[in-house]
Amino acid sequence: MPDWFRRATTRLDVPRIGTREPRVAARVELVELTPATDAFLGQAAYLQLAFVESLARCAGAAPTTQAKEVLARVAALAIAKQRALSDLIAERGGDPAELMDPYVPTIDRFQQLIRGTDWYEDLVSNLVAAGFLDEFLVQVGKGLDGDVAGRVARILSQPTGEADLLALVSAGIDTNPRLASRLAMWGRRLVGDTMLLARSILVMDADDEANVEPVFTELIAAHTRRMDALGLTA
Amino acid sequence: MPDWFRRATTRLDVPRIGTREPRVAARVELVELTPATDAFLGQAAYLQLAFVESLARCAGAAPTTQAKEVLARVAALAIAKQRALSDLIAERGGDPAELMDPYVPTIDRFQQLIRGTDWYEDLVSNLVAAGFLDEFLVQVGKGLDGDVAGRVARILSQPTGEADLLALVSAGIDTNPRLASRLAMWGRRLVGDTMLLARSILVMDADDEANVEPVFTELIAAHTRRMDALGLTA
Repeated sequence: MPDWFRRATTRLDVPRIGTREPRVAARVELVELTPATDAFLGQAAYLQLAFVESLARCAGAAPTTQAKEVLARVAALAIAKQRALSDLIAERGGDPAELMDPYVPTIDRFQQLIRGTDWYEDLVSNLVAAGFLDEFLVQVGKGLDGDVAGRVARILSQPTGEADLLALVSAGIDTNPRLASRLAMWGRRLVGDTMLLARSILVMDADDEANVEPVFTELIAAHTRRMDALGLTA
Repeated sequence: MPDWFRRATTRLDVPRIGTREPRVAARVELVELTPATDAFLGQAAYLQLAFVESLARCAGAAPTTQAKEVLARVAALAIAKQRALSDLIAERGGDPAELMDPYVPTIDRFQQLIRGTDWYEDLVSNLVAAGFLDEFLVQVGKGLDGDVAGRVARILSQPTGEADLLALVSAGIDTNPRLASRLAMWGRRLVGDTMLLARSILVMDADDEANVEPVFTELIAAHTRRMDALGLTA
């Protein structure tokens, strides 16, 4: 990721004239929209905690012991990420709970929005939300200060158990092919809420907001690949 | 733990005469009642999975972000034990889900029985059930074949996060002292169901059943210490 697009944290507030080239404005990159370190870490840590909860709920509702075990293992991956982020916060002299707290309402509401009507929808929610948001946070995290950026990248690039979740969903579709169209629709609905949450993490002025759309293109492509892997047209 | 009380797996079915000394019969030890290796591992592994679920449910219902994080960490300890037991089963050529399956109804029913009416009761349930049963399984596991016995002891002696759960319950009682008497009653009720589950794990004939009571004495003492640590008379 080239560093030369990186914008200084305090920007000069030059009055903008209407003749400004729209192409320049379109150049906004995720690393320019990275929140302050504490805000980033608080949101990233609470998101992992929210994933733990929803994965554990999926484990509880799993129809087989084997699926239950797989989900406990996937939840352990999110717990490990959460702990690593909390450790990083503590090393920096912060209190993990204090940094997470301001983001609880937004992230809990997001989790409610992506809660499915059955176990398979919940699996797809976890797959899509964790897949998209972990990747998003890795990109956004590149805008943090050097040392923290490296730690965050290492933590959030750890496996999410995506392949395990995919296998559970695929097995369900094999047994009941009618699931496919419902889950495809569900996946399409999820990505909207997920992008809105991602967007809410970014620090943007009005210009950024007008031009942020393209930065999601790559992430949506990854989402589409995930849905394709399930044979679900996203 | 002396080995000379250890009973051969296949017992001679000698007809018993009424003159048998009751003192001899009272000599029953937990290691004499150890189930077959697969049965032991299946039950131990599914119990851990059940603990994961109930801890995760507690995490979901936690009133603070800090408590949520603590509970996710405690759940991770149970997940680690569950994985280690599943790995052991797989190394022995078994299928973890297949070995756990026969015990799902009994253990799920137990989890329902010990489900509290609020978050604090659920915390105490986890504390009492995991504390009692992990210790029980360590004792019973000493009756397994040498190599497996060692592995099982190492896995199940790992921390259960008891101190963390105790701290959460204590903090609740400090804030609301009226909680204490309700939780004391709840703890007393729990230990009955927990002992019944423990008892169902043992392989016993009629004589053993008549004389198994004393083997629980030590485990009840440990339970009492746990409740005392909370200032709750067990």
